[in-house]
Amino acid sequence: METLTASKSQIKVPDKFVYYFAAGEAEGNAGMKNILGGKGANLAEMTAIGLDVPPGFTISTDICTHYSAEGNKIPDWVKPKVLEALKRVESKIGKNFGDVKNPLLVSVRSGARASMPGMMDTILNLGLNDQTVEGLAASSKNPRFAWDSYRRFIQMYSDVVMGMNSSLLEVTLEDLKAEKGVHNDTDLDTEDLKKLVKKFKSMVQQMTGHSFPADPLEQLWGAVAAVFRSWNTPRAVTYRELHSIPSEWGTAVNVQAMVFGNMGDDSATGVAFTRNPSTGEKKFYGEFLVNAQGEDVVAGIRTPQPISQLQEVMPAAYSDLERNYLKLETYFKDMQDIEFTIERGKLWMLQTRNGKRTAKAALQIACDMMDEKMISEQEAIMRIDPASLDQLLHPTLDPNSKKTLLAKGLPASPGGVCGQVVFTPEEAVEMKEKGHKVILVRVETSPEDIAGMVAAQGILTSRGGMTSHAAVVARGMGKCCVAGCAEVEVNYNTESFKAKGYVVKKGDIITLDGGTGEVYLGEVKTIEPKLDGTFTRLMAIADKMRRLKVRTNADTPKDAKTAREFGAEGIGLCRTEHMFFGEDRIDAVREMIVSDTKQEREKALAKLLPMQRDDFYQLFKIMEGFPVTIRLLDPPLHEFVPHSDSEIAELAKRIKYDENRLKHKIHSLHEFNPMLGHRGCRLAITYPEIYQMQVRAIAEAASQLVGEGMKLIPEIMIPLVATAKELEILRQQTIEVVEQVQKEKKVKFDYLVGTMIELPRAAVTAHEIAHHADFFSFGTNDLTQTTLGLSRDDASRFLGSYVTGGIFAKDPFVSIDQVGVGTLVKTGVDLGRQTKGQLKVGICGEHGGDPDSIQFFENVNLDYVSCSPYRVPIARLAAARASISRKKG
Amino acid sequence: METLTASKSQIKVPDKFVYYFAAGEAEGNAGMKNILGGKGANLAEMTAIGLDVPPGFTISTDICTHYSAEGNKIPDWVKPKVLEALKRVESKIGKNFGDVKNPLLVSVRSGARASMPGMMDTILNLGLNDQTVEGLAASSKNPRFAWDSYRRFIQMYSDVVMGMNSSLLEVTLEDLKAEKGVHNDTDLDTEDLKKLVKKFKSMVQQMTGHSFPADPLEQLWGAVAAVFRSWNTPRAVTYRELHSIPSEWGTAVNVQAMVFGNMGDDSATGVAFTRNPSTGEKKFYGEFLVNAQGEDVVAGIRTPQPISQLQEVMPAAYSDLERNYLKLETYFKDMQDIEFTIERGKLWMLQTRNGKRTAKAALQIACDMMDEKMISEQEAIMRIDPASLDQLLHPTLDPNSKKTLLAKGLPASPGGVCGQVVFTPEEAVEMKEKGHKVILVRVETSPEDIAGMVAAQGILTSRGGMTSHAAVVARGMGKCCVAGCAEVEVNYNTESFKAKGYVVKKGDIITLDGGTGEVYLGEVKTIEPKLDGTFTRLMAIADKMRRLKVRTNADTPKDAKTAREFGAEGIGLCRTEHMFFGEDRIDAVREMIVSDTKQEREKALAKLLPMQRDDFYQLFKIMEGFPVTIRLLDPPLHEFVPHSDSEIAELAKRIKYDENRLKHKIHSLHEFNPMLGHRGCRLAITYPEIYQMQVRAIAEAASQLVGEGMKLIPEIMIPLVATAKELEILRQQTIEVVEQVQKEKKVKFDYLVGTMIELPRAAVTAHEIAHHADFFSFGTNDLTQTTLGLSRDDASRFLGSYVTGGIFAKDPFVSIDQVGVGTLVKTGVDLGRQTKGQLKVGICGEHGGDPDSIQFFENVNLDYVSCSPYRVPIARLAAARASISRKKG
Repeated sequence: METLTASKSQIKVPDKFVYYFAAGEAEGNAGMKNILGGKGANLAEMTAIGLDVPPGFTISTDICTHYSAEGNKIPDWVKPKVLEALKRVESKIGKNFGDVKNPLLVSVRSGARASMPGMMDTILNLGLNDQTVEGLAASSKNPRFAWDSYRRFIQMYSDVVMGMNSSLLEVTLEDLKAEKGVHNDTDLDTEDLKKLVKKFKSMVQQMTGHSFPADPLEQLWGAVAAVFRSWNTPRAVTYRELHSIPSEWGTAVNVQAMVFGNMGDDSATGVAFTRNPSTGEKKFYGEFLVNAQGEDVVAGIRTPQPISQLQEVMPAAYSDLERNYLKLETYFKDMQDIEFTIERGKLWMLQTRNGKRTAKAALQIACDMMDEKMISEQEAIMRIDPASLDQLLHPTLDPNSKKTLLAKGLPASPGGVCGQVVFTPEEAVEMKEKGHKVILVRVETSPEDIAGMVAAQGILTSRGGMTSHAAVVARGMGKCCVAGCAEVEVNYNTESFKAKGYVVKKGDIITLDGGTGEVYLGEVKTIEPKLDGTFTRLMAIADKMRRLKVRTNADTPKDAKTAREFGAEGIGLCRTEHMFFGEDRIDAVREMIVSDTKQEREKALAKLLPMQRDDFYQLFKIMEGFPVTIRLLDPPLHEFVPHSDSEIAELAKRIKYDENRLKHKIHSLHEFNPMLGHRGCRLAITYPEIYQMQVRAIAEAASQLVGEGMKLIPEIMIPLVATAKELEILRQQTIEVVEQVQKEKKVKFDYLVGTMIELPRAAVTAHEIAHHADFFSFGTNDLTQTTLGLSRDDASRFLGSYVTGGIFAKDPFVSIDQVGVGTLVKTGVDLGRQTKGQLKVGICGEHGGDPDSIQFFENVNLDYVSCSPYRVPIARLAAARASISRKKG
Repeated sequence: METLTASKSQIKVPDKFVYYFAAGEAEGNAGMKNILGGKGANLAEMTAIGLDVPPGFTISTDICTHYSAEGNKIPDWVKPKVLEALKRVESKIGKNFGDVKNPLLVSVRSGARASMPGMMDTILNLGLNDQTVEGLAASSKNPRFAWDSYRRFIQMYSDVVMGMNSSLLEVTLEDLKAEKGVHNDTDLDTEDLKKLVKKFKSMVQQMTGHSFPADPLEQLWGAVAAVFRSWNTPRAVTYRELHSIPSEWGTAVNVQAMVFGNMGDDSATGVAFTRNPSTGEKKFYGEFLVNAQGEDVVAGIRTPQPISQLQEVMPAAYSDLERNYLKLETYFKDMQDIEFTIERGKLWMLQTRNGKRTAKAALQIACDMMDEKMISEQEAIMRIDPASLDQLLHPTLDPNSKKTLLAKGLPASPGGVCGQVVFTPEEAVEMKEKGHKVILVRVETSPEDIAGMVAAQGILTSRGGMTSHAAVVARGMGKCCVAGCAEVEVNYNTESFKAKGYVVKKGDIITLDGGTGEVYLGEVKTIEPKLDGTFTRLMAIADKMRRLKVRTNADTPKDAKTAREFGAEGIGLCRTEHMFFGEDRIDAVREMIVSDTKQEREKALAKLLPMQRDDFYQLFKIMEGFPVTIRLLDPPLHEFVPHSDSEIAELAKRIKYDENRLKHKIHSLHEFNPMLGHRGCRLAITYPEIYQMQVRAIAEAASQLVGEGMKLIPEIMIPLVATAKELEILRQQTIEVVEQVQKEKKVKFDYLVGTMIELPRAAVTAHEIAHHADFFSFGTNDLTQTTLGLSRDDASRFLGSYVTGGIFAKDPFVSIDQVGVGTLVKTGVDLGRQTKGQLKVGICGEHGGDPDSIQFFENVNLDYVSCSPYRVPIARLAAARASISRKKG
C-alpha cells in the first residue's frame, strides 16, 4: 500500500487536465466523474446530448492534489492550458474576458466526485471591474443589473477568495436599505449600487490590506485557488468525514460563461427534481425565483415559488424545461436534480445530477423505474442506500395522541421526534453529550451548523424551502426536519421562539413531524413504523441476490421476535450475561460469584439453571429451527456485583453473607483493565462449573423442544479464546455435559461448539483453533479494541480529534478498520479454512449492521453477519449490494 | 501447525521401541536421547565404550505418549518386545526373572530427554516375592540382605505403583525399631525383616484393597505403567513448567538388572561429579555410602562420606572408578554426573550424564576445557546457560560487616541473601506474595517444596549433602542454598530452630552465605558482585560470535552506568515518564496536566524543560556516543496525579488551584481501561506541546554535547502508534522542533525519529508505518497484553492455572509467546523492511533479557535487543548462543 501523503515527487503530471465543453464539443463525459467531478462530468454530458449549456471548461481533480502538494499554489504548467480553453469559450460565445465593451463573465464553481451540497464555494460574475461593468451595462442595456452583479461579485469574492468577514458588507447593504427606507435589495437603484461598490472596495482595502483585484485574470486565478483551498476548510472536512469521502479525491473547478437570471422579470433561476425527492411520486417538482441568481434559491433567503407556476409565468421556457428534464431522466436513468437559469426568456441548463432523496422516495422511485423498464432489479438494489432505510424504521407520531399544534412548515425530511429546544449548534452538541434529546431551531442553517444537526433529533427552520441547506442536509442524514416554518419567530437574543401566541424557551420540549411539517408543543407519543409494499418488494429482490446470511444479535424474546419480523435468519449472538441481570436471578448470580468453594458455587448455579433453561427454550422456539448461537458468560464477574457500601450491606443481608467479607470479596474482584482481565473463557478455565451450568441449560432446553417435535441445532459459542488449548479443554467439557443430558433425557440432537475470534492472537493462530471449532464468529468490537489498543469506553476523549485529524477515516467502532482489524479478520478466516475447508464463519460485532463493513465481510467470504434487530433490513440490502459489487469486481 | 493433543489415530506405532544394552551389545547410543531419554541413551553409550553396566533395556519415550493416548494403558503390542528383551538380559546375566533359586531382580527407572532429578519415580529390587526372596537369600548367602531388599521393594512399590501412603509403612518400621530399642535400619535382623514384610503385605491389602502382586511380570507391568503415569503427576508438571520442558516429550523406561550396594561392607553406592559442580575446580568430587542403595545417598537421609575416602575403604574399586570417570569425561567432553554401585568389591556404572553446575563452575569448566583443547570456543559458549549468569550478578555478603554466626553447613548454591524465616513452602509463597523476603528452613526438601523454594530468597536444610534434593534444585534455580547444616535443630511444631544456643522463630531474620555455607543471625550487609576473569573471557568470546546488539533499558544515570559496565551498547529504551516523578518536578507535571488551555500547559511545561534537558544531557554523556533511544511520554496522565482527597487538597494549595475544580479535573481523567486509553502518542495528538517540550529538551541537550565535541545521534521514539498517520503527524512536529533548536543553537547533528511497534494494528500495517519511521522498536510487553487481550496487572489471578493447565507453556510476559505475539513481531519486521530494506529494528520489552526470546529475535532478524542493566550479560551470551544455534540450523 502507498503512503497516505502525497509529496511533490510522487504525483504524476497528467497528460490532460483542462476539458472544454460547449454545444457538440464536449471533451469530457458523464463517465469521467473521477477527474471532472460530478458537476463537470454532467455538464459535459448535457452538452453532448444537445441541451443548451453555457460554454466553459473543467480543471480536473488531479490539479487539486497538485495544488496542495505545491503548498497551496496553482502549478505554473496549469495556466497556459486554462487560458487556451478560455479562448475557446470567448470565441464560442463571441465575448472576450476583460473586454470593456462586451465583457465575458464567468462563474467559477467547485465540483467533487461526490455531491457535497453547500460545502464548496462558488464565485459568480467573475470578470467585472470598473471598466467592464460599464460594458456590461451598455451591452445588457441594464445598468442596474450590471452594477448589482458587480456588488454581488465583490461581496462573494472578498468573502470566499480574500477571506474577509462577509457580514461587514452585508451590514453596509442593510444600512443603505434602512437609510433609504426600503426592504428589498431590488429596491436599490443604479446609483445606490454604484455607491455601494465604491464603499465595498474601500472596505476591502481597509479590512484585508489589499485592493480588490481589477485584473480579470488575477480574479480568475484567485477564484480557482479558492476552490481548491476550500476542499480543506474545516466544514468541507467535516462533511467528508460524515459521508466517508476520502480527502485524496480532491475537487475539480468548473469555469463557465455566465448567464443571468437576474436580468429582469423575463429572467429567472430555479432548481428542480424530476420526481418528488421526499415521496418518490412521479411528478416534476421544484422551485424558482424570478429576477434572481441561483444562490438566492439555495440560500433560502427569499422563499421561492413552486415550479408548476413557471408554466404560467414563462410558458415557453417551461415547455423547454419539461422537454429537458424528461430527456435527462431517460438519459441518466435516475431521478435528476437540475439547476437552470432563464435569461431574457431563454432557458439555460446549469447542472444535472442524480438527486438526493428520502428512503421512502428511493424505494418508490426504484420500484417505479423497474416497472417503467428503465432499470433492472440489480440496478434498483444499487439505487437504495442501505443506511437510509433507518429512516423507514424510525417511529412516527401517533395520530391518536392529543397534540397542541404550534406551527406548520415544509415536510423537509420524514420522521417523528421530540426533544428540548436549543438555538445553537454548540448547545445541541453539549446537551446531546449530557444525554438529552434536542431539537435544533434556527432561522436557517449553514454548513457551520452541521455538527449541531448531527447531534439533534430533528431540525426546525423558519426560512428556506425544500431545497434549502437544512432540508437537503437533513434528508441526507435521514434526520427529521421541518423547514421554512415562517410562523415560528425565532429570537436568538432571548433564546426563545414565538408561534401561535406561545413562547417556547430554550429547554422546552417540542415535537416535529417531518412527514407533515407540523410542529407540536410538548412531547407527542410516537409509534413504530410500518413498512410498505415497495420495501417488501425490494427486500425480496435483495434476498434473492445476496450470498451472506443475515442473523441478529438478540438476548430477549422481544428482540428475537422483532428480528424475525425484519427477516433475520437466526440469532448470531445471544449474550447470556444479559439474562443474568434479571431481578429474579441477579442475587443468585452474586451468590455464585462470592462463593468460596466449588460446592457453594454449584449450589448457586443450580438456582440459575431452570431460569437459563427457560430463556433458551423461548429463544429456540421463536427462532423456529433457525440457527441460534449462544455465547457463554463473557464479562468479568465484578460487573454483576454492587459497589457502594449501602448496596453491599443490603446484598449481604439478602444472601446471608458476612458484610465485611462480602466487601472484601467484591473489592478483590477489582481489575485495572477489565477489558483484558478475568473474563470470557478464562472464567471457565478457573470455574468450569459456570459454563457447565449454561451448557446444561442449553442442552435441556433443546431436549425439551426436540421432544416437542422441533428440529434445531444449538450453536454453543466460547468467548475470548486466545489459544487452541483453551478451546480444546472447554469443548471437551461442553461435549461431556451435552452427552450427559442427552443420556438423561434420552434424546439426540446435533449441536455445534464454536468460538469467538476476538483477540489478535486468536486470529493469527486460527489454524490451530479451528481444529477444535465447528464455527468461528468474529467479535469485531473486542477485536477492534485489542488490535488498536483502544478502549471503547475511554476513546471518546480523543476519538473526535482522531477523526477530525484524518487519522481514522471513520470511527473504527462504527465501520470496521479494514486495513488493521480487517487484515486480522481475513487472516483468521483464511487460516481457519486452511484447517477446515468448510468452516462456518460469521461476525457478530456492531459492524455486522454497517454497510461498508458488510461489503468487506462479503469480500473476505464470511458466511453470515449478525446485527441488532433494527438493522437487519439494512444488512439484508447491504449484503445484496455487496454481492452485486463484488461480482462487478 | 499441528494440534497439541495426540489422539489414538494420529500416533504412528514406531518400528522399534525396545532397545537392549549389555557389554558390547548396545542397540542405542548417546545420540538417541529423544527416544531413549537421557539416562537410557547414556547407559547404551557407556555399554558401548566398554564400561561395566548391568544389562538391561530401554522402552522408548514414544510409548509414554501411546500410554496416555490409550487412556493410561500399556498398548498390547508393546509387551512381546519387552519380554524378548528381558529374555536377553536373563541369558546375559545367567539368572531368570522369577526364578525361585537364583532370581533376576531388576530396577525400573524413568528417563526423560532432559534431566529431571528427583521428579520421576524409581522401583528397585523388582522381581521379589515370598519364593524368590528365599532364592536370593540362598544365592547371595545373605538372608538379611534379601529380606531387607524385599521390604524396601514393598515400601517403594506400594507407594509408587499402588498409590499407598508410604508413611504408614515408614511408621511401622520406626515402631519396630523403637520396640527393639535400635536406631538404624541396619540394626534390624533377618527375623525382624521377615515380620516386617508380612506386616507390610497385610497393610497393603488392608489400605489398597488389593493384595501385593506376587507375580514378577505383574510387578513389571505395574512399575512400567507407574513410570509413564508419573510423567503427569503434578510435581513432574511443575518441574516441566519451571524448566520449559514440553509435555509431549514423554519419558522412557529403563529396566535393568539389579546390582547391590547393600550386600555388606564390601558393597557401596555413590554419586560423583568429574569436577567440582560448585566452583568448577578440576577435581573428582562426590559422595558414597557403604552398604547402601542409591536412594539413600540422594534422599539425604544418611550423611554420606566424601568420595576421596573411597580410595582408603575400597582401593581397587576406587581405581576402576577413577579410570571410568576420566574415560567418560574425555568421551562426553563435559563434566559428568555419575552414579555407581560396588557389589562385593566390583564396580558397576549405573548412570552418567552431563552434570548440573553453578554459573561460576560452568564458566570455570568451560575455560578449563578450552585450555585443555577438549572443546572449542563455540562449544564453550553453548555450555553456559545464560540465565545462570544471574547467580554471578547477585550480591554476596560484605566480609567487613559485623556478623553473628549461627551455624555452618554445606555451601550448596552460591549467593548472599537474607530474609524472614519460614518453615513451610506454603508460608514461603504467602509471605512472598505479601512482599516479604523469606528464607525457607527445612530438615530436608522434597519435590513438594518446589513452589516454596521458588518463592524464597534462599534455602537452609539441616540434613542432606551437596547432591541432596535441596542442593541440586537450588543450584538449578540459581538460588542461594546452605544444605546439611546439622547444627540447626529444626522444630516444626514450635515453628523455630535452635543453633548455638539461639532460638530463631518464624519471622526472625537470618542471612545465608551460599558460597561458604554460613548462616548468620539478623541481616548482614551485602555487596555487589565482581566478575572474574572467566566471565570476562567468555563474554569477549560471546561478543565475537553474536550478531544481535545488546542495549539496555535505563532511565537514570545510575542504571546507564551499571549497564555500560555490563557491556550495554547503548540505551534501547529511556522511559521519560520515570523522570517526571522526581520530587522537584512532579508538581510541575501536575500543573501541566490540570491546565485548561494550551497556554497554561505550555507554562507548566516550560518549568520541566530545563530538568528534562539535564536528564538527557547526563544520559547522552554516560553513553559516550552509543545510541540512546528516548521514548516520549507514554502513560496516561492520571498516573501522575494523586487520588486521595487529602493529597488532592495539599496539591491544590501547593499549585494554587481551586480544590473542587482540581478534584473534578482529576476525576475526569479516570479511565476504565487505562492500558487502552488516552496515552502514548494519543496524548501528543491532543496536546502536541507535551512532546514538543520533550523533543526540545532532547535537541537542546544534544546541541550542548555537540558543542562540547561529542558525536551522538539521538533516537526519538514515539510510543503506541496504531496508524501511519499518527506517526506522520508527530514526526513532522518533531522535525520542526529539532530544526528550530538547531537553528537557535547554530549546531547540526543527525537524529532518528522512530516508533514503538506495540499494538497489533501497528504490526499488521508496518509497511505503511515504516514510511515515516527511521527505526522500529517492538514493545513486546504491551504487544503481549493487546495480542492476548491479557492485562499484566490483572492476569495473576488466573495465569497460574493457565500455566499449570498447559495452556501457556511459559508465562508469556517472561518468555515471548512465539506462536501468537511472535507471529505479529515477524509480520511487523517483514512488512517494515518491505518498505525500507535497511530499517533498524529492535525490541525493548522485558523479553529482551530472556534467552528463549532472544533466540526468537535472532531468528526474525532484529538488529538489537534491549533489557534491564543486570540482564545485559545474559543477553550478550544468549545472543551469541542464538547466532550459533541459528547457523547450525
